[in-house]
Amino acid sequence: MLLKGGLILYDTSYHPTRADILIEGDKIVEVKRNINKAADEVIDASHSLIIPAFINAHTHSPMVIFRGLAEDVPLMDWLQNYIWPAERKLKRKEVYWGAKLALLEMVHSGISTFVDMYFYMEEVARATLEVGLRGFLGYGMVDLEDEEKRRKEIKETEKLHEFITKLNSKLVKFILAPHAPYTCSLDCLKWVAEKSREWDSLVTIHLAETRDEIKIMEEKYGRSPVEVLKEANLLNDKLIAAHGIWLSKKDLEMLASSNVTIAHCPASNMKLGSGIFPMRDAIDEDINVALGTDGAASNNTLDIIREMRLASLLQKVNTLNPAIVKSEEIFRMATINGAKALKLKAGIIKEGYIADIAVINLKRSHLLPLHNPLATLIFSAKAGDIDTLIVSGRVIMLDGEVLTIDEEKVIDKFLGVGI
Amino acid sequence: MLLKGGLILYDTSYHPTRADILIEGDKIVEVKRNINKAADEVIDASHSLIIPAFINAHTHSPMVIFRGLAEDVPLMDWLQNYIWPAERKLKRKEVYWGAKLALLEMVHSGISTFVDMYFYMEEVARATLEVGLRGFLGYGMVDLEDEEKRRKEIKETEKLHEFITKLNSKLVKFILAPHAPYTCSLDCLKWVAEKSREWDSLVTIHLAETRDEIKIMEEKYGRSPVEVLKEANLLNDKLIAAHGIWLSKKDLEMLASSNVTIAHCPASNMKLGSGIFPMRDAIDEDINVALGTDGAASNNTLDIIREMRLASLLQKVNTLNPAIVKSEEIFRMATINGAKALKLKAGIIKEGYIADIAVINLKRSHLLPLHNPLATLIFSAKAGDIDTLIVSGRVIMLDGEVLTIDEEKVIDKFLGVGI
Repeated sequence: MLLKGGLILYDTSYHPTRADILIEGDKIVEVKRNINKAADEVIDASHSLIIPAFINAHTHSPMVIFRGLAEDVPLMDWLQNYIWPAERKLKRKEVYWGAKLALLEMVHSGISTFVDMYFYMEEVARATLEVGLRGFLGYGMVDLEDEEKRRKEIKETEKLHEFITKLNSKLVKFILAPHAPYTCSLDCLKWVAEKSREWDSLVTIHLAETRDEIKIMEEKYGRSPVEVLKEANLLNDKLIAAHGIWLSKKDLEMLASSNVTIAHCPASNMKLGSGIFPMRDAIDEDINVALGTDGAASNNTLDIIREMRLASLLQKVNTLNPAIVKSEEIFRMATINGAKALKLKAGIIKEGYIADIAVINLKRSHLLPLHNPLATLIFSAKAGDIDTLIVSGRVIMLDGEVLTIDEEKVIDKFLGVGI
Repeated sequence: MLLKGGLILYDTSYHPTRADILIEGDKIVEVKRNINKAADEVIDASHSLIIPAFINAHTHSPMVIFRGLAEDVPLMDWLQNYIWPAERKLKRKEVYWGAKLALLEMVHSGISTFVDMYFYMEEVARATLEVGLRGFLGYGMVDLEDEEKRRKEIKETEKLHEFITKLNSKLVKFILAPHAPYTCSLDCLKWVAEKSREWDSLVTIHLAETRDEIKIMEEKYGRSPVEVLKEANLLNDKLIAAHGIWLSKKDLEMLASSNVTIAHCPASNMKLGSGIFPMRDAIDEDINVALGTDGAASNNTLDIIREMRLASLLQKVNTLNPAIVKSEEIFRMATINGAKALKLKAGIIKEGYIADIAVINLKRSHLLPLHNPLATLIFSAKAGDIDTLIVSGRVIMLDGEVLTIDEEKVIDKFLGVGI
């Protein structure tokens, strides 16, 4: 496949470069001007900006079903009085259709890869294979110190691990997903750490999302959530910890020295009033910071471009320093840092990397003129501006039309749901 | 004109109501189920959400030209080292094309009405008439205590006032626009107050945008910028003050008791690291708070839907209270509060009001399911989701296609500008 004549944000310098891109199989094999090789498929990318596709490092895809269900309430209220009761009634089939809707939304946002924690994850796997994105899918374990519940959660996790292993898919991958240090017992967390080694699996968890959580952990363990994860043997480069807002200097140092990734989720943190991630401190400690949309129930989108914008704007205003974080740093969070967390050779446009690519047609009034492509991408663009999405060398969307599934059919399923 | 079968956010309760809307001339004359009257034009709005069009209470439309030009720098640096030098080179014709680009962007964002402060405003008037939006256009006066410059600024303002008066347009209106209390002398501000009474003109100004401004005013006058405006006789219901971040309790009380409108601009305030508007205090003081995008050089869009989202999210996280501000309050800022500031009977869908209406097709993966239309509008939607825009009873855009000017031609003008 050949992408012709686009303006590329190349390598990690993101220097705008006009060139062609040759893709063979699932890899980028050549990036240079005027490639004159035969290709099965040629995509005209003139007037387009070509970027690495995004990596959504934290979401709960089926929660699109609850978009707008609970508004203007804090996290614990939101969970206990709205989301958990609604989830208890949720059916397997609804999760399947919810995941499809979420995947479509992610396609339009230029996301190739996502980390997902929920239940009925076999249904999310099915939807992921149909749409053709890359999903790291985990069963969200919550045992609340109850031994019987823990056995059930372990069984569900083992079932999902077996299911995904048998799929033997390049795109659907397993991830361990204990919900949080305050909803999982220490025994549960230790079991996860053990299985992570045994199965060579990544792990994702919610961490230090609210001040309440810090208080709960202090009362229960006399320690911070990070210290509890250390005791459970979970602090290592396989861990992707979502949120990471209420972290002490010591917590940050522990996360840095053990190569944990933080999946920053600004929209959700703002909407639920959870708090402000100490981004500058985290980056300065050399923590790998990725970006996530969280679920659409607390966002209320899966638009990682709006997430980049928020991530930057929030730090600037919070420190009253517009230079506190650079666009390059923000873009890395949404691309290569996510790839690093997931051990993928992806997240940049460069020879030898996985062909996960998004194409943005610049012929739009809100994207012109183009003085600074990276700034335009982060501050002016939004989901919906992505026209073409290539995942692992396969065209998922071309000129705004999703090629892999019937989008209209999914939309019709949800039209009239709610009001 | 008849809008059939849409879901309407009706009146100020915004209760989602399924009904038809009958428009005669520039007015909404009837809103009810199954209107069976003949109409010259019938627009099918089934599967659509119908809302009052937005009012952008503060912008500098031609500054789209500088989109992305100066990134990650603070306001004073941004103005003095990037924007003002670029503006000194700006040509009349560029302002015309910039305004057209900006107007197109506002059309796609569902904006019917905007308050604009810049120079070569005759060109902005031309562009506004061509596109068919409603503009309150002011010449941005900056005299920097220089008497000669003041005379020049007064002359420019008088010229624009005469030009717009002669246009005798329902859509293009004059507004006085002294730049700010720290860039205009007290004599200049007093002249503006006098002309506001003589011409019965609205006034717009930047106010209390940065901490530096407060310091400058303290050093120069020993007073706050609000107190200086009071001395200039500018504090009344004709004044629209943009930003209003660094306001004391006393300042807020003065603005409230004199019925001044604040045009809140969250994206610009965040991007330039200016500060956080005390929204709850301002609303609780009964100040009329409207919403503005500011110019695209510090935003970097004119998307007032993203502006609503930011306005809400920023207050929630800043107070760690997700209930601090309600979606109804945010939506009012972007609609009826702007109308109130501009003395327009607009900003809600109701019989007798001006027919400024935006239509959003809901058949989009990121807008479904629809549990809460107002939340979906503020937190999930974005510019580009507006399909049809009616301004003063005239269809400006239908199903995403701008009918009044050739959008492609404007876009081609800016393609290749910059990189």
